[in-house]
Amino acid sequence: MESKYQKIEEIVAKELSCSAHAMEHVIRVYNLCLHLAKCESNIDLDVLKTAALLHDMARVKEFNDKSGSIDHSALGAELADKILRTLGYSEEKIAHVKHCIAAHRFRGKVKPQTKEAKILFDADKLDVLGAIGVARSFMIAGQYSQKIYSETSIKEYMKENVIGEKADGMIIDISKHSPNLEFELKFKHIPERLYTQKAKEIAKERLQFMEDFFEKLKREIKGEL
Amino acid sequence: MESKYQKIEEIVAKELSCSAHAMEHVIRVYNLCLHLAKCESNIDLDVLKTAALLHDMARVKEFNDKSGSIDHSALGAELADKILRTLGYSEEKIAHVKHCIAAHRFRGKVKPQTKEAKILFDADKLDVLGAIGVARSFMIAGQYSQKIYSETSIKEYMKENVIGEKADGMIIDISKHSPNLEFELKFKHIPERLYTQKAKEIAKERLQFMEDFFEKLKREIKGEL
Repeated sequence: MESKYQKIEEIVAKELSCSAHAMEHVIRVYNLCLHLAKCESNIDLDVLKTAALLHDMARVKEFNDKSGSIDHSALGAELADKILRTLGYSEEKIAHVKHCIAAHRFRGKVKPQTKEAKILFDADKLDVLGAIGVARSFMIAGQYSQKIYSETSIKEYMKENVIGEKADGMIIDISKHSPNLEFELKFKHIPERLYTQKAKEIAKERLQFMEDFFEKLKREIKGEL
Repeated sequence: MESKYQKIEEIVAKELSCSAHAMEHVIRVYNLCLHLAKCESNIDLDVLKTAALLHDMARVKEFNDKSGSIDHSALGAELADKILRTLGYSEEKIAHVKHCIAAHRFRGKVKPQTKEAKILFDADKLDVLGAIGVARSFMIAGQYSQKIYSETSIKEYMKENVIGEKADGMIIDISKHSPNLEFELKFKHIPERLYTQKAKEIAKERLQFMEDFFEKLKREIKGEL
């Protein structure tokens, strides 16, 4: 990594210091962005690298905000503005990086308009799929004391556990959640939401892996040997 | 389930009420015991079912014990003694159930001497393997803020993180642990420790599934698409 990006990484790592997972995710998304960029033409790699490193820097602030009013994509874009100004980025580049960050959220209001924003959006979603997706889902399940597997149907679950609505979707009682429900409700619909061809391919492969995993888990839970 | 076993299940569920995972595990182990028993001859199913339901009833007591002196297999056997006496079990059966519970621990001092104790030991170990094993490992990783994947070699890890020794093995700084290290250190060695032929077969299949999972995770973490 060039020294400019190292400087940005250090700023983000400090901001995310209480969450090792968040920083590891940032680095994986950064690498995925570079891979996806290889399959596209005329990518501004400077904008893409910068946006990838900064995209989640307001994650911890959103997590710690009890009022629920902080959106880490909007706040992240504002924080990026100040940082990039001190690092001497041009006005045009700053605006472009801010758009990438503001548009990276799955159910966000701002939709990605540029190639770089689309790549970042896609890379971020790929990192919740595959073996990493399984691992991250169960780590969250452990944190929130969720069940290892839920036999409730989606319909029944939605009837019982949706406790409200917010701008980017429903508010769910997270302790009643479980990774297989999250897979059915959210992960399965990711490929259709992606923008780049390469990301769609990777997503399908990673989704199949998850589907096979949850099938095996279900069989083991039910005692089939 | 017959009403006698339902009564025992209720007692155990109350004891483990703060840990849904522990009770779900008990039920899976109970079912696995019944499966394994089908491949063996002359099994005392009454002893086996009773021991399977009671084997982890002191889990929460061990977990909450700050002194580290409680061994849930030894304490579980003692607690079982009182319960079975009130339920009218014979002296011989009580002794047999107690042996099964006392001998179920992976690195325990008491080794299983009867067929029923061997089946319980095996069933308990099978439930940490396969997709369930992956899911449980990452739930623990989430609870203890472990890393999603560790690139440290086992040798290096042992040098840095073993902080003491106790009767049944080494004391490890669990926050420095990660599921792939647990797999290398412990899970891989389970098949050679099992007693029944059927359990060895299931263990090998489940272990292969885990090995494939961790291989895929490693490739994704390293950014191979």
